[in-house]
Amino acid sequence: MNPPFDLVIRNARLVTASEMAATDIGLRGEEITAIGHDLRPGLAEYDAAGHFLLPGGVDSHCHIEQMTAAGIMNADSWESASRAALHGGTTTIIPFAAQHRGKDLTAVVADYHVRAEIGAMTDYAFHMIVTEPTEKVLTEDLPALIAAGHGSIKVFMTYDPLIVDDGGLLALLTAAKAAGAMVCVHAENHAMIKWATARLLAEGKTAPQHQAAAHPRLAETEAISRLIALAELTRQPVMIFHVSTANSLDLIRAARARGVRIWAETCPHYLYLTDSAMERPGNEGAKWMCSPPLRGVADQAALWAALRGGDLDIVSSDHAPFRPDATGKFAAGPDVAFNRIANGMPGLQTRMPLLIDAALRGKLTLPQVVELGATAPARIYNLGRKGRISVGADADLVLWNPDSTTLLSDDTVQDGTGYTPYPGMELRGAISAVWRRGKLVLKEGELLARPGEGRFLPRSGGDAARWDS
Amino acid sequence: MNPPFDLVIRNARLVTASEMAATDIGLRGEEITAIGHDLRPGLAEYDAAGHFLLPGGVDSHCHIEQMTAAGIMNADSWESASRAALHGGTTTIIPFAAQHRGKDLTAVVADYHVRAEIGAMTDYAFHMIVTEPTEKVLTEDLPALIAAGHGSIKVFMTYDPLIVDDGGLLALLTAAKAAGAMVCVHAENHAMIKWATARLLAEGKTAPQHQAAAHPRLAETEAISRLIALAELTRQPVMIFHVSTANSLDLIRAARARGVRIWAETCPHYLYLTDSAMERPGNEGAKWMCSPPLRGVADQAALWAALRGGDLDIVSSDHAPFRPDATGKFAAGPDVAFNRIANGMPGLQTRMPLLIDAALRGKLTLPQVVELGATAPARIYNLGRKGRISVGADADLVLWNPDSTTLLSDDTVQDGTGYTPYPGMELRGAISAVWRRGKLVLKEGELLARPGEGRFLPRSGGDAARWDS
Amino acid sequence: MNPPFDLVIRNARLVTASEMAATDIGLRGEEITAIGHDLRPGLAEYDAAGHFLLPGGVDSHCHIEQMTAAGIMNADSWESASRAALHGGTTTIIPFAAQHRGKDLTAVVADYHVRAEIGAMTDYAFHMIVTEPTEKVLTEDLPALIAAGHGSIKVFMTYDPLIVDDGGLLALLTAAKAAGAMVCVHAENHAMIKWATARLLAEGKTAPQHQAAAHPRLAETEAISRLIALAELTRQPVMIFHVSTANSLDLIRAARARGVRIWAETCPHYLYLTDSAMERPGNEGAKWMCSPPLRGVADQAALWAALRGGDLDIVSSDHAPFRPDATGKFAAGPDVAFNRIANGMPGLQTRMPLLIDAALRGKLTLPQVVELGATAPARIYNLGRKGRISVGADADLVLWNPDSTTLLSDDTVQDGTGYTPYPGMELRGAISAVWRRGKLVLKEGELLARPGEGRFLPRSGGDAARWDS
Amino acid sequence: MNPPFDLVIRNARLVTASEMAATDIGLRGEEITAIGHDLRPGLAEYDAAGHFLLPGGVDSHCHIEQMTAAGIMNADSWESASRAALHGGTTTIIPFAAQHRGKDLTAVVADYHVRAEIGAMTDYAFHMIVTEPTEKVLTEDLPALIAAGHGSIKVFMTYDPLIVDDGGLLALLTAAKAAGAMVCVHAENHAMIKWATARLLAEGKTAPQHQAAAHPRLAETEAISRLIALAELTRQPVMIFHVSTANSLDLIRAARARGVRIWAETCPHYLYLTDSAMERPGNEGAKWMCSPPLRGVADQAALWAALRGGDLDIVSSDHAPFRPDATGKFAAGPDVAFNRIANGMPGLQTRMPLLIDAALRGKLTLPQVVELGATAPARIYNLGRKGRISVGADADLVLWNPDSTTLLSDDTVQDGTGYTPYPGMELRGAISAVWRRGKLVLKEGELLARPGEGRFLPRSGGDAARWDS
Repeated sequence: MNPPFDLVIRNARLVTASEMAATDIGLRGEEITAIGHDLRPGLAEYDAAGHFLLPGGVDSHCHIEQMTAAGIMNADSWESASRAALHGGTTTIIPFAAQHRGKDLTAVVADYHVRAEIGAMTDYAFHMIVTEPTEKVLTEDLPALIAAGHGSIKVFMTYDPLIVDDGGLLALLTAAKAAGAMVCVHAENHAMIKWATARLLAEGKTAPQHQAAAHPRLAETEAISRLIALAELTRQPVMIFHVSTANSLDLIRAARARGVRIWAETCPHYLYLTDSAMERPGNEGAKWMCSPPLRGVADQAALWAALRGGDLDIVSSDHAPFRPDATGKFAAGPDVAFNRIANGMPGLQTRMPLLIDAALRGKLTLPQVVELGATAPARIYNLGRKGRISVGADADLVLWNPDSTTLLSDDTVQDGTGYTPYPGMELRGAISAVWRRGKLVLKEGELLARPGEGRFLPRSGGDAARWDS
Repeated sequence: MNPPFDLVIRNARLVTASEMAATDIGLRGEEITAIGHDLRPGLAEYDAAGHFLLPGGVDSHCHIEQMTAAGIMNADSWESASRAALHGGTTTIIPFAAQHRGKDLTAVVADYHVRAEIGAMTDYAFHMIVTEPTEKVLTEDLPALIAAGHGSIKVFMTYDPLIVDDGGLLALLTAAKAAGAMVCVHAENHAMIKWATARLLAEGKTAPQHQAAAHPRLAETEAISRLIALAELTRQPVMIFHVSTANSLDLIRAARARGVRIWAETCPHYLYLTDSAMERPGNEGAKWMCSPPLRGVADQAALWAALRGGDLDIVSSDHAPFRPDATGKFAAGPDVAFNRIANGMPGLQTRMPLLIDAALRGKLTLPQVVELGATAPARIYNLGRKGRISVGADADLVLWNPDSTTLLSDDTVQDGTGYTPYPGMELRGAISAVWRRGKLVLKEGELLARPGEGRFLPRSGGDAARWDS
Repeated sequence: MNPPFDLVIRNARLVTASEMAATDIGLRGEEITAIGHDLRPGLAEYDAAGHFLLPGGVDSHCHIEQMTAAGIMNADSWESASRAALHGGTTTIIPFAAQHRGKDLTAVVADYHVRAEIGAMTDYAFHMIVTEPTEKVLTEDLPALIAAGHGSIKVFMTYDPLIVDDGGLLALLTAAKAAGAMVCVHAENHAMIKWATARLLAEGKTAPQHQAAAHPRLAETEAISRLIALAELTRQPVMIFHVSTANSLDLIRAARARGVRIWAETCPHYLYLTDSAMERPGNEGAKWMCSPPLRGVADQAALWAALRGGDLDIVSSDHAPFRPDATGKFAAGPDVAFNRIANGMPGLQTRMPLLIDAALRGKLTLPQVVELGATAPARIYNLGRKGRISVGADADLVLWNPDSTTLLSDDTVQDGTGYTPYPGMELRGAISAVWRRGKLVLKEGELLARPGEGRFLPRSGGDAARWDS
Repeated sequence: MNPPFDLVIRNARLVTASEMAATDIGLRGEEITAIGHDLRPGLAEYDAAGHFLLPGGVDSHCHIEQMTAAGIMNADSWESASRAALHGGTTTIIPFAAQHRGKDLTAVVADYHVRAEIGAMTDYAFHMIVTEPTEKVLTEDLPALIAAGHGSIKVFMTYDPLIVDDGGLLALLTAAKAAGAMVCVHAENHAMIKWATARLLAEGKTAPQHQAAAHPRLAETEAISRLIALAELTRQPVMIFHVSTANSLDLIRAARARGVRIWAETCPHYLYLTDSAMERPGNEGAKWMCSPPLRGVADQAALWAALRGGDLDIVSSDHAPFRPDATGKFAAGPDVAFNRIANGMPGLQTRMPLLIDAALRGKLTLPQVVELGATAPARIYNLGRKGRISVGADADLVLWNPDSTTLLSDDTVQDGTGYTPYPGMELRGAISAVWRRGKLVLKEGELLARPGEGRFLPRSGGDAARWDS
């Protein structure tokens, strides 16, 4: 009647999004089945004394095996990306099945399933990037795909040829509302970026560092303001991706105060880096190019305050991996202007370690880290049994040693880019062990997982639907 | 080696501030010792199938056995108040040890301890109401009392003779900062209330319903704006009590956005009632007089939105019990003007049931109810083992039957006022059982607790201190 | 050495934008040559005792002889429009030379000159409506036309096929900045209007009254917010046409506070009418259709407050005249849905009388009326000698009798529409006489002007340029 | 029938608050009687070719012959102050009849009349400083004095023993409303200043430069926020004196947007100086001490933007003259801490020259300078015939030579302080001549006026009353 535990982790300092407790935790199969003092012996035992036990991270914004229209090579396969994730304490990821123009969305998703099944070592879901909201997409593909468990859509307000205009966005918001899916948006004003870029190039400002000025703060705030208006009109919830400025936070707060249902995320690079990172000699700065670009210290401070105050819901990585060579960032040539260099930084491996470091230095609490890095993304994207340490939840667990440190370096990078945006940075805390659905997949730096073990997580619309009236 | 459980509650739908889980829960002594599937048999067993199991409510704002300067009788003893609390699913309360002018603060607290020890059936802490921030209070009484575990102070910005002026408030904020205590504030502009009251009385507007106009919305927003400025200047965290208007929320959001450390609460009567409640014939409306007064529907909507969006931290009762007779509300006479009628409403018994009703109707989620009604007040006021269902926490538990209903009526009132502000209202959900530190204290309406069983909870400053840099 | 006056107007209560004075005023030729007590006799004399003497109105936003793409007939020729203007105390107008798609902008302006020369009875300038910001338009037509005195451009953010997208708007703002011209904008989000219209039509809501919902408030605020961002990015001043909502005013105030150089106007119909005007039986409501649509009473109040507080710069008519018959509003058919009915209301004749009425009822001061209706538009659009009573200025003067009244009625309409939006409204004040460059052109309702007497006013960019750093 | 002019000023470039004109201007007696081309010869003639002719400045905020409670000597007599004013192009001033505690307001005003009659060389009115709003003051003195033409009251929210608390302020606002007077307020939070001062002194920060930190920005914004709430509650217009921070401007804009009737001024020292001026060695910095204190460059920029955008109504001097010696600033001793040094700077002589310099450098327009420095204060305080160049107005005129310069230096100071806050500053523009009611009182630096020639200007409440509904 009382079957034994497959594994008991003893004496952990367990951290959830709302609580901390010193306790044992018992697993059976892939599931957490008990949390308590003095649990009976398991088939296996793990002594976690002195360590924090957190749910596995959920990274709800990362780009994997996604070929860009320009032929630039994403540096990561499902295998390398999910390896980096596990090394960074993340056990669930949501990358993008991206419809490029002229492609069939249903086929795109089917193809992405095949790739994931082969390579994934973490569990996963997909956001569907829609670039052509045709009648077929809106009335056939999307309803069927959402019903099949793909409960979130991503839209770009910038980037040729991904961009969707206001009319397309309204159509997608309306379709998402009907089907109960979340809509995630990269919000920057395309025309403003083009205008600023043209002026910079005309002035001979072609180095990577000028990319910051090419994506003006106004481009972000304008697009977020517009997106909020569209969401307000259609009463469809939206997730605002990678918020990078203080002004954007003001818009978000004001919208919520009048009842608009919006969620928002930021990424570690906006919290830990500034645009001065791009001011390195030659093209070195290209490694820190991302979009929206890195901003200044006042924005950093505002983002930290927003995390502490609950005004940002998620910290995702926006992992966008390109090798700093001719296969990736410089696919268009070694000396091209910033606007022809691929945008993006790796982040799957460093996201949770950076957040843990923040908690150990008192900038966030550990429960806030759990909420921002695991519980909230799982709840908002409706990932059922993920993102929490709770009886009945999947046994995705990460054991952190607060007394150790993690040195960030190109040498230890697990993803396909070969570089870290934080070279030489020493973080408080280090991962001792990672379990994915009860299986030990990483131990003291040694990877024990294998490609293909990851599992697809079908889901519906998440919080978006729940709140709907 | 594995001692048995004293009690196992089976098959509950456990709700915490961040998660839900279908599971058993095991208790030993006063503590939760395990949460899990198929726990071994306990000495006692309780079948909770179909019920929600929540942590016991924490009511961090209530007035008990507090004699006012004017000789108006608070209707509640510790016994009656804590009985009402248990009947309402609240197992921890924080009432006020109130220094009236000319009284010694240390003696006031000592006296309040005696009263609590005799009568309390719930666990408890005190906020210390300071009305005279003398040198002795600031440099002797407060540091010693805070060190002794009284980590929070309350200040009134209105009410003769309780009022503390800006200079006194600055002195208290500075002293609280030095000692690591939270400062809670009743924020209304005293002069504006006096001015408005005088005009209303001069116009013959003496009925209870005019109390709303006597406490203008501007009186609240002005005082909150001023309080925020004082908190910002001293860098001392404050808790803004009983927020009642949409404009106050705007001030709170703006302050947080610039990093001011403030917390804020509202109360159920601002969520469920409007000032029209006072428009009853004769003096009947006096039952709904409170301060700040009930407001309008737009404010209600704004407060609900703020709860959903995380802009209000706590829902407390502001239980301020006066019998609607010559001992209480009409101590000054049966036909006096509104300004001589005692302000306040009972709320200990109805707070959690009203929140549960909100969740069952989809206005909040159940985890939000736990956060607002138990976890957040325990965390913010540093009540250690209270306010959460977590291994190692006190076994304060409430079992709610979502399929039953609770009819609010004067007949079922447990506190000393003899009336409910919500007569005839039928709430979704009903309490089946309440445990306080592992002891079953209420079962299907039958009280099993006894006066004196409640325990004092010493504590330090809470979140306030934690966030300090 | 001291030549006589051609005309002396005696004993007037002269009103300028900043002052009032009881005095005589002397004219010689087309010019004001003296203001003073006891001026020497003129060749003619006019006793203005008891009357207010104001500068002739300047209406900087009106549509005349403009054929729409859909073939809907503008009801006014230059002759009828300028006749209506004079009857309404307006002596200078700025209508639009509108480039329709495929047309050459320079040719459009030349053609419009010919029409104006034939028919105009008031003086005039043109705004150039640009719909296709091609390279030729941006680098050839516009610089040459602006240099030739057409110092203002109008852009539509909505209306197929007039709409200019963000990229086109940035190009125009940049070109205008280089050439020193003002850019005026009709700011509504096109996609939102299309989306809302489609839904209303799908629900069978086709009557004129639904046009208000088809142009959501959010469509206006979104577009104004975006326009401000574009102006801020390019540092090019813009004039925001026909502001109709309280929220738009908030955006405008916030932008100005951070130094963005924007001007804004509203129109009398937003001040005096609400959307309930469209709720008449059948298609009668079409007479009150305009874009942005009439709004509610809260917006009215906010607009009046903004006028009093100086947050709106100009009151223009947005005179957009269509007969309520098959030549105009119902060109697409007698029973078409609201989206196929022509938008617009007449206003040239009623703008100044409505403002004077506001002053005589104490809602504005008379100097404010002069500023909003004459001096500000002349200053902002750089109309040199217009819009003020000042020695050396053109003698454009209007004598108002404050003790008389003006009854608005279809019977007295002078423009080509045949109807007034204010039937039966009795205004305080009436026009006794109008002089245009010294010539008496209207006396007690009798028109003394003739087509072709109006004169073109070349100008450069106005305030826009002046403030540039 | 056509009497000759006493004086004709020829060929001036006349500037009013709304217009500019090249013209002659004719005077008869004390009045402007004609503005026009080719006016007939006057008894006297003045060639103003190449010069700007502006109305005489109106300085509505200056302290003269006011003994402070602490016995500190105001450095100016009516004679020295009005001499400085004339040298600075100001022909009308409104200093303060200050009721000190225990004094009778009516007697104070009578006494001040006597002093003014003896010494004044400019025309003048008084603001009445009320420090004790007793029943007698509210119901007897004020109504009678206001009826006698003293239509404005000043209140201090800080400064012992001048301070009036919220209750007193509400009583004064109510009394002012009943009698139709304006209420002007020095808005700083007294308790915050005391708190900050005590901390600075405790840290040994006693030098003048610490006065800035002793008057925190929050002290100003808090008090302005509170003042606005009190004005909003009583619906009584108020003038907010000497606004010094960007945040205060935000409060003012927000209040106006919701219809609160407030006016606001700033002073040249907030526009031209920053708090770094106080960082001179020894006690030299005391010359730049004023209250509110000088602020930083961001505030400067915000104030300039507010002047340009119309969000500030008046530029006054807040002339508060103390000699930097034992009679004035250091009356309490040569080495006292900043809190015992008299606050205030001279400004009567430099206010208009600094504004003219701003216009000649393109930071303001000349009409804006006239509005801010003369027309607006005259209109708002209801100074009838003052502040404008208009037929029938008093012939208070100042002729400015734009091609000359004015060097500010201690050597040319005309007031009693003996120093200028702007030593070595060279301003564009210089005064050629000043007329006061038609009499030439200053010519190329030579003073032609005599003490006692100034005239009292009785008035009622000004704009405040006009806008009342």
